[in-house]
Amino acid sequence: MITSSDNPAIKEVRRLQSSHARSRSELFVAEGEDLASVASASGWNAVHTLVREGSGLEGDEVQAELLDSVSALGSGTRIISVFERHFVDTPAAGMIIHLEGLRDPGNVGTLIRSAHAFGATAVSFGDQTADPYNPKSVRASMGSVFAVPLVVGAAIEDLPGVKVGLVGGASVTSTLPDEDVVLILGAERLGLSSSTLELCDLTWSIPMPGGAESLNAAVACSIAMYAVNRIQSS
Amino acid sequence: MITSSDNPAIKEVRRLQSSHARSRSELFVAEGEDLASVASASGWNAVHTLVREGSGLEGDEVQAELLDSVSALGSGTRIISVFERHFVDTPAAGMIIHLEGLRDPGNVGTLIRSAHAFGATAVSFGDQTADPYNPKSVRASMGSVFAVPLVVGAAIEDLPGVKVGLVGGASVTSTLPDEDVVLILGAERLGLSSSTLELCDLTWSIPMPGGAESLNAAVACSIAMYAVNRIQSS
Repeated sequence: MITSSDNPAIKEVRRLQSSHARSRSELFVAEGEDLASVASASGWNAVHTLVREGSGLEGDEVQAELLDSVSALGSGTRIISVFERHFVDTPAAGMIIHLEGLRDPGNVGTLIRSAHAFGATAVSFGDQTADPYNPKSVRASMGSVFAVPLVVGAAIEDLPGVKVGLVGGASVTSTLPDEDVVLILGAERLGLSSSTLELCDLTWSIPMPGGAESLNAAVACSIAMYAVNRIQSS
Repeated sequence: MITSSDNPAIKEVRRLQSSHARSRSELFVAEGEDLASVASASGWNAVHTLVREGSGLEGDEVQAELLDSVSALGSGTRIISVFERHFVDTPAAGMIIHLEGLRDPGNVGTLIRSAHAFGATAVSFGDQTADPYNPKSVRASMGSVFAVPLVVGAAIEDLPGVKVGLVGGASVTSTLPDEDVVLILGAERLGLSSSTLELCDLTWSIPMPGGAESLNAAVACSIAMYAVNRIQSS
């Protein structure tokens, strides 16, 4: 049983809270049995698995207080697994989500969960976007981070499909295309940059008959995915 | 200028972080200029307004470090306002959202923001639901908490409109009605209780062709509001 905070696996889990350490090591952490079971069902094998002493779970037993001390969820953690990050090079055409400037990891995770539900073929991460393997993103994705192909550093031009920019407050709403799409989402307050807008084949906005000027970014993108599904199944 | 942490207004702002204090005093806190301006545009008058020294904003000047020390946002706060909570007794028919068991204040705030955008006539809070005046909810609402009528403790039977229960994973999706609706949302993992389902005129679920079993609760409810809008404007 692991009882020392100097144990290399314990030190690694602590280190992987930092974005820099995740980039350098190509590893990330997922906590909890729900995430572990989605990972396993999606064919991911953990590099390390640390489990609470006496939990009966498979992995290296760790003294309870020590495991809690490296948990991002706080007390009561039963399992912490370390996985290798995985990005795909060439996403399949269908419905690809491309993000620019979405900095909140909780929003990114929520959006990956929706992408999984709506059968997106990939989520692509552009500039200034939160790391999908941030512990908050992994948790908010409810494990969908293991199921949806993720792409990093792709040029919009290279993503297959009609490029649809999601914009707020347009007075005229265009119709979504009934073919392969790339849905492009900008930062919550700033929206899409003019250089990105130039790459879009069309823009689409969500009709908002009420008074609010905008929606949460993960909500807006999820509605766009739902709308694409509706068009394509109608 | 206020410089003492014993100042009554400072003590009150600190106290209003607690749900119990908000219930007892019927007051809540909103931070930041964005929220203050939505409140003002929606006709709300603050009971107190505390502003950072030298900010030039209207209100009682507070020494900068002292104001930061009672801020839930951390350093750099320029304005903290205290408002009276406001619940309506009889919500107008149209599109009412009724929540049961939604405990996460960030989700509640995000959902109120969507309710505002989609022109919901009220958001109604049932059992075991986060306080909409929780600072995290107020912030996630982006000020929509000031614009959308909120109802607390209403019986579902008394809310006007066709009662539509949002459920997950149904194999058959019914059509949303083109008339006044009450959209009823349960807790993220548990869904609606059987007693609530009995009160529903129909259930509706979001088609999820991908692999995820569920969506974030605020996302799911926002999609339902969008879908109601689409039905009613078609």
